[in-house]
Amino acid sequence: MADEVILLDVEYSMFGMRARIALAEKGIEYEYREENLADKSPLLLEMNPVHKKIPVLIHNGKPVCESLVIVQYIDEAWKDKSPNFLPSDPYARAKARFWADFVDKKVYESGRRLWTTRGEELETAKKDMIDALKLLEAELGDDSYFGGDNFGFLDIALITFYSWFHAYEYYSKLSFEDHCPKLIAWAKRCMEKESVSKSLADQNKVYEFVLLLRKKFGTG
Amino acid sequence: MADEVILLDVEYSMFGMRARIALAEKGIEYEYREENLADKSPLLLEMNPVHKKIPVLIHNGKPVCESLVIVQYIDEAWKDKSPNFLPSDPYARAKARFWADFVDKKVYESGRRLWTTRGEELETAKKDMIDALKLLEAELGDDSYFGGDNFGFLDIALITFYSWFHAYEYYSKLSFEDHCPKLIAWAKRCMEKESVSKSLADQNKVYEFVLLLRKKFGTG
Repeated sequence: MADEVILLDVEYSMFGMRARIALAEKGIEYEYREENLADKSPLLLEMNPVHKKIPVLIHNGKPVCESLVIVQYIDEAWKDKSPNFLPSDPYARAKARFWADFVDKKVYESGRRLWTTRGEELETAKKDMIDALKLLEAELGDDSYFGGDNFGFLDIALITFYSWFHAYEYYSKLSFEDHCPKLIAWAKRCMEKESVSKSLADQNKVYEFVLLLRKKFGTG
Repeated sequence: MADEVILLDVEYSMFGMRARIALAEKGIEYEYREENLADKSPLLLEMNPVHKKIPVLIHNGKPVCESLVIVQYIDEAWKDKSPNFLPSDPYARAKARFWADFVDKKVYESGRRLWTTRGEELETAKKDMIDALKLLEAELGDDSYFGGDNFGFLDIALITFYSWFHAYEYYSKLSFEDHCPKLIAWAKRCMEKESVSKSLADQNKVYEFVLLLRKKFGTG
């Protein structure tokens, strides 16, 4: 019996995009179902009763939730399909997991503040974001990818934020390329991969989405 | 050459205790170094420049940070030493990782609010904590451990909070055993393991530590 794979997702979610890239990298066919977060489907509530969040990967009826858990699950459940996202060396695996967690804690959090705050709070968010990106740039070093020669776990975890960069930059008046040229070169390199470019939402569409969110929450 | 293993830690940290249990379970000898968070050692700042937090596991000079990353690293770097913390089945691994992340997000966060807030905020924290523990109790089901017959990754991630339960209960006037008798029975079962009982700080000492923290932060 062929695998049944369903992804409950939202187009602009940097977390959902991670699952999309991972599935594309492994060449796994799946059914994409766009969720409306204002009116969540009964399936989403049934499959992720704890957090009620997307993305949820449903593999032969069984749900996997939380994007980094999903990416590792895809890596392990389809381990015979190349590429492998995590390397085999335990220390390299630990480093990839550490930095992916850092992305969730620092990049996501600073990014959100770039379009939801003003004044002093915004200035702090700008500094936090640049600090975070510079640390990631230093971790990348002169490698092609965070996975060295191979596009891997941390590459997947971080590249999805690239689709939000235009929105982040617009509201913060920052140029990430001025501060972190090597990181932007890495992002452009990742975008040359079809698994990435076809999984990421368009930067302008995300910007328009953020514009709507700001109006909705009274920040705009 | 024998492995050199150093753990930078703080006695009362539920995150540090995870690393201690993992090392004890695998029978790995290591040097324990207690950190003073008010005056962090140069080694801590050098080994975890990003977060400047304990625990840090230093294995042959190389640092691993963030407790769940450390526990997985110990599992993988010493994979020939039993027990293995994560099972081999990809879906079981994903579930263990999902719930360990849940512990970090919900149990830690609700727990902190139990001794730092009052009034309505405290009531919310109490509800959040009981909800979280009940979800975990349901996940445990009738198994001996979250790892089934084996004490595993999620057991390690959660049991360290048991050393804080007396403090949590004292300030919230909750009885976790009244709400979650099976979960407390699980905790007592874990405590029968020397790797756990010798790694966990005494509940009364943690309570006294929290008393000091509350005075320091003006909550007491």
